[in-house]
Amino acid sequence: MVRPSLMAKNTDMRWRLPLVCLLWEVAMIILFGIFVRFNPEANVADWEKEKQQRNVTDIENEFYFRYPSFQDVHVMIFVGFGFLMTFLQRYGFGGVGFNFLLAAFGIQWALLMQGWLHTFQHGKILIGVESLINADFCVGSVCIAFGAILGKVSPVQLLIMTLFQVTLFSVNEYILLDLLHVKDAGGSMTIHTFGAYFGLTVTSILYRPNLEQTKEKQESVYHSDLFAMIGTLFLWMYWPSFNSAISNHGDAQHRAAINTYCSLAACVLTSVAFSSLLQKRGKLNMVHIQNATLAGGVAVGTSAEMMLTPYGALIVGFICGIVTTIGYVYITPFLDAKLHIQDTCGIHNLHGMPGLIGGIVGAVTAAAATEGVYGKKGLTNMFDFTGEYHNRTPSIQGGFQAAGIAVSLAMALVGGAIVGGILKLPFFGDPTDENCFEDNVYWEVPGDEESSLYCMHDSNAKPVINP
Amino acid sequence: MVRPSLMAKNTDMRWRLPLVCLLWEVAMIILFGIFVRFNPEANVADWEKEKQQRNVTDIENEFYFRYPSFQDVHVMIFVGFGFLMTFLQRYGFGGVGFNFLLAAFGIQWALLMQGWLHTFQHGKILIGVESLINADFCVGSVCIAFGAILGKVSPVQLLIMTLFQVTLFSVNEYILLDLLHVKDAGGSMTIHTFGAYFGLTVTSILYRPNLEQTKEKQESVYHSDLFAMIGTLFLWMYWPSFNSAISNHGDAQHRAAINTYCSLAACVLTSVAFSSLLQKRGKLNMVHIQNATLAGGVAVGTSAEMMLTPYGALIVGFICGIVTTIGYVYITPFLDAKLHIQDTCGIHNLHGMPGLIGGIVGAVTAAAATEGVYGKKGLTNMFDFTGEYHNRTPSIQGGFQAAGIAVSLAMALVGGAIVGGILKLPFFGDPTDENCFEDNVYWEVPGDEESSLYCMHDSNAKPVINP
Amino acid sequence: MVRPSLMAKNTDMRWRLPLVCLLWEVAMIILFGIFVRFNPEANVADWEKEKQQRNVTDIENEFYFRYPSFQDVHVMIFVGFGFLMTFLQRYGFGGVGFNFLLAAFGIQWALLMQGWLHTFQHGKILIGVESLINADFCVGSVCIAFGAILGKVSPVQLLIMTLFQVTLFSVNEYILLDLLHVKDAGGSMTIHTFGAYFGLTVTSILYRPNLEQTKEKQESVYHSDLFAMIGTLFLWMYWPSFNSAISNHGDAQHRAAINTYCSLAACVLTSVAFSSLLQKRGKLNMVHIQNATLAGGVAVGTSAEMMLTPYGALIVGFICGIVTTIGYVYITPFLDAKLHIQDTCGIHNLHGMPGLIGGIVGAVTAAAATEGVYGKKGLTNMFDFTGEYHNRTPSIQGGFQAAGIAVSLAMALVGGAIVGGILKLPFFGDPTDENCFEDNVYWEVPGDEESSLYCMHDSNAKPVINP
Repeated sequence: MVRPSLMAKNTDMRWRLPLVCLLWEVAMIILFGIFVRFNPEANVADWEKEKQQRNVTDIENEFYFRYPSFQDVHVMIFVGFGFLMTFLQRYGFGGVGFNFLLAAFGIQWALLMQGWLHTFQHGKILIGVESLINADFCVGSVCIAFGAILGKVSPVQLLIMTLFQVTLFSVNEYILLDLLHVKDAGGSMTIHTFGAYFGLTVTSILYRPNLEQTKEKQESVYHSDLFAMIGTLFLWMYWPSFNSAISNHGDAQHRAAINTYCSLAACVLTSVAFSSLLQKRGKLNMVHIQNATLAGGVAVGTSAEMMLTPYGALIVGFICGIVTTIGYVYITPFLDAKLHIQDTCGIHNLHGMPGLIGGIVGAVTAAAATEGVYGKKGLTNMFDFTGEYHNRTPSIQGGFQAAGIAVSLAMALVGGAIVGGILKLPFFGDPTDENCFEDNVYWEVPGDEESSLYCMHDSNAKPVINP
Repeated sequence: MVRPSLMAKNTDMRWRLPLVCLLWEVAMIILFGIFVRFNPEANVADWEKEKQQRNVTDIENEFYFRYPSFQDVHVMIFVGFGFLMTFLQRYGFGGVGFNFLLAAFGIQWALLMQGWLHTFQHGKILIGVESLINADFCVGSVCIAFGAILGKVSPVQLLIMTLFQVTLFSVNEYILLDLLHVKDAGGSMTIHTFGAYFGLTVTSILYRPNLEQTKEKQESVYHSDLFAMIGTLFLWMYWPSFNSAISNHGDAQHRAAINTYCSLAACVLTSVAFSSLLQKRGKLNMVHIQNATLAGGVAVGTSAEMMLTPYGALIVGFICGIVTTIGYVYITPFLDAKLHIQDTCGIHNLHGMPGLIGGIVGAVTAAAATEGVYGKKGLTNMFDFTGEYHNRTPSIQGGFQAAGIAVSLAMALVGGAIVGGILKLPFFGDPTDENCFEDNVYWEVPGDEESSLYCMHDSNAKPVINP
Repeated sequence: MVRPSLMAKNTDMRWRLPLVCLLWEVAMIILFGIFVRFNPEANVADWEKEKQQRNVTDIENEFYFRYPSFQDVHVMIFVGFGFLMTFLQRYGFGGVGFNFLLAAFGIQWALLMQGWLHTFQHGKILIGVESLINADFCVGSVCIAFGAILGKVSPVQLLIMTLFQVTLFSVNEYILLDLLHVKDAGGSMTIHTFGAYFGLTVTSILYRPNLEQTKEKQESVYHSDLFAMIGTLFLWMYWPSFNSAISNHGDAQHRAAINTYCSLAACVLTSVAFSSLLQKRGKLNMVHIQNATLAGGVAVGTSAEMMLTPYGALIVGFICGIVTTIGYVYITPFLDAKLHIQDTCGIHNLHGMPGLIGGIVGAVTAAAATEGVYGKKGLTNMFDFTGEYHNRTPSIQGGFQAAGIAVSLAMALVGGAIVGGILKLPFFGDPTDENCFEDNVYWEVPGDEESSLYCMHDSNAKPVINP
């Protein structure tokens, strides 16, 4: 199909990738050495003191409130996002492997950035299980953005994007949570809206006019769709943990899990309905099932810990299943053809629009909060109307929540434009257009060397290009 | 092989499936809006009051007692059952995808049905994490029944079956738990016996005389067997959570997990032994490994929370590994040939017989309970011999347990016959005999359109039939 | 390729495998019947008493401290190790299936052995959730050793090895924990060092000179590498649970999880760096990504619960990613060619060297412990300097830790030599050299019978050999 001679770009990672990995990891070690320590609940001497002062026993250690949720979130980031991105027929290694790489780097940098901005005291960042969850959350937004550029960038580009995106995420999160005093426990705004529009801006800047050449490779094969379903299901099942992981203890975590469970269940039904409705002969499309079924989790990210109520959650899920499926059928092709936004995984459908909806639902739910429903103390606790915020009312909070959406969107667009520009620099080893969506460029693919004959539709298809 | 002209039935789902999904989901929203609210442990105002009244802290919220187990059960329903049913070579999408669809609908309807029958107070259903577990349990019985008809029905038929089966499950559960005051924390009777015999009755009514035509498609290929092992292992590993999820706090949950762990371990050994013994040349059969190894979990469903003891659990597991493997080798072919019961996944072996054994083991264990072993207070707590049941003795309890088996069986057979009759109506779009076990009928299968040439034993095999 | 006539050995398992499975399982039942009972936290009568005596509520039951971690460890043993070993193109059934078999037997025997040696009182072994974790840990060392001989032994040989290795593991653990009073919560010494060098000794004794014949089968195919990544990721994600599962309540579990999280993250970066650096054209090798990324978890096994600090953990992970990757590129071929150690999965790289490093890091961290960092009470609790050990100082403890490494290594080498000798006996049905790494020998492989034609690079490739 394509001759080696057409390969003008040098995609050899041999020095660039190791250099970036090693230098940055050394930097992490130095910065951790200077700044990062255990928080009192993970520090042997401090926890002894805490237990006496607060008159509690070991079971009240933050670990037992959050560790199971942390592990579920961890699975979502690494197996969920990782396997969801194995749907391409020849990019499974890249999907799950590069996601692994960028997330492993990103969580370290996120611990630092979020630490400096949120919990920096006396020159130290004190980390505990909640820090690990927040780092995973931050990296989640990078995994989302990765979905837009999947198959079209080198691992070095991904690491650079991770460095910048984690930084911008943390700044945006700081503005929302600390300055605007906004609630966003499941990250509809900070994670999904920010991550999606950041990624979409990056991919539009990295626009490749000749991608139709690789049309076949942009599709799945039978078994790659089943691998992707592993990712889908782990994301779907553990989303209640995602949205409840950093909520307040007790009722808030409990409620966030229930709301998310309900929203996701409704979302499956409408995704299936519209997938069938919009396909010829009413056949279901795996792309919709793999993605649109998850939109309900995205869209209750902000409001799940509030008194959204189960039927409110069902309504949100109902709408998002429809919006996302329509997005895949009509909006993604439109963005590609008209706006030159090539969105490999359709993150605009799964994270962009549902993220915006989630921000709006959160603002409305906050504005509609009353003492009648929450109780006086409950309302104060829920929105943390204490200290300098003791005068805030739910309706004012709703306004700030709405402002949070706008800020996240602005940060994503501006940040994405800058980072996209940086990634366009010619020395990061991105693949040629005809080599996109092809593991063979950056991975030793088994069987590549021995033979050029291969069964056309074989799942172990060996690429014809041997650079 | 088969010509399009032979396809008399209309399997186009374009209007039927969306209509059912959307209408029913709207109904869910309305019913949830009228009936479903958070229970006091998930409600911000109520939990504040509870904490004061009961003088407890947040860690005593029901959420922390049950949420990790809930998530494990959730994985069993969606990944466990879903992937277990991907073993067919050309029905992976249907196996995991339809399971996803029916379970997502079923949990919503189960929240309502179980709520009305078990926790309805002052016109409201108050839900919490235990409700989510119970809804998942209820749907588990539908997933089991799905196993019998896998590959032979349309998604509309599955949704209709789910609607009726969840309803009947809830009624049966009400009779057992509330009227007979029977213990069945892991659902040997309510989930497995009921689900299996319901599904077997349905499949016998939907009997298809010409299924030998699809013999090849009823088999696995190498990679589909590995996908199925994902399902097997998550079911096997998380079964201790399944059987302990709704047991009493403390020792009961603890004990249920240990008993299940032991039973499952023993079951693997005897499954392997009999798989080798009954095959020619002593080779192991993946069908047995995928299924029979799980029978030990089914069969301690009722008794795991009781003082079954670890060696008692080993004995139960030992027996069930043998019974189930023998079932696959001898009983399934017999049921098919003589009784016209076509049981795709062999649920009679994995859930039917072990479920019955589990009910009997539960009855015997209950009848054998003594104050010497449980302590006076422990015995009362274990079997809830309070209120109108304060006069029950263990031996009477054993009798009621046995009655529970009979009721579950009767409900399954009668209910299955009625529902099977409904599903036989000609307008639900079920596939023709020659199109059974074939994803191509209801799914866009990648690569289907471009070529009719394909590699015969390719895992991405494209069906020759293009309707 | 190979003719049936060359098959001198009898690999028919029909009587041998069932006999071993059934007899041993009967033995388990008898021994459990005599010895094993629930511990007070899982026993209904005892827990009632405990609650009163200790004045606690149900949430303080050991179950809630450890059950989520137990389930994560359980996933690591069965899905983690199981799927990690499916990377071979024609040994997926054997990888995941035999791992399932040996682990299911091993945990039962481990409950007995560890019970007799650690918790035997008044003639009974009292088990609880911590016993289940310890049994899983013990079996983990057998799964490691299995990695060295993967594809070259019969299931009967594996069961025999499990019987002996669990026994020796328990004795070694007893010497370390009870006699030397060494800390090793994550098992760098007891699990990884012991398991790896035991397995390497066994495989060197079972040396097969003609394995190059099966060179192709020792490689992966595209989808088998993705299956293996399921194993890798579940091991990687849940390793923080592994290292914290049996640590002290509160800060120690909390800290162990954080340290492990950090070490693993760093390890991914250096594994990727060196994989790219050492391959031609800088392409990443899936073998390195699947394995070396995990070395960081192994190497903080001893020290994770200590005050290793996050940057200390990063340094350990940094080093181990490098050491392990270099191991795969240079040391494994060297061991094979020069020392006749055929290490299928490269356990020397992933468990051997990092296990030794982990032991050393543990010894150094223990020796460096001060009252300034731990507090007086904290130091005593951490290292259990009570009773006959009340005079131990951190530096003496460091010396004993170092002795623990030596003992583990010695036990592994001597034990492995003896067990290897036993496994060499000619009547256990091991495969011929040309049939190694081939599921067809012990499994019914789908499609085997119908045709000898198959697509060369098909993932469902049917072996040409039909014995």
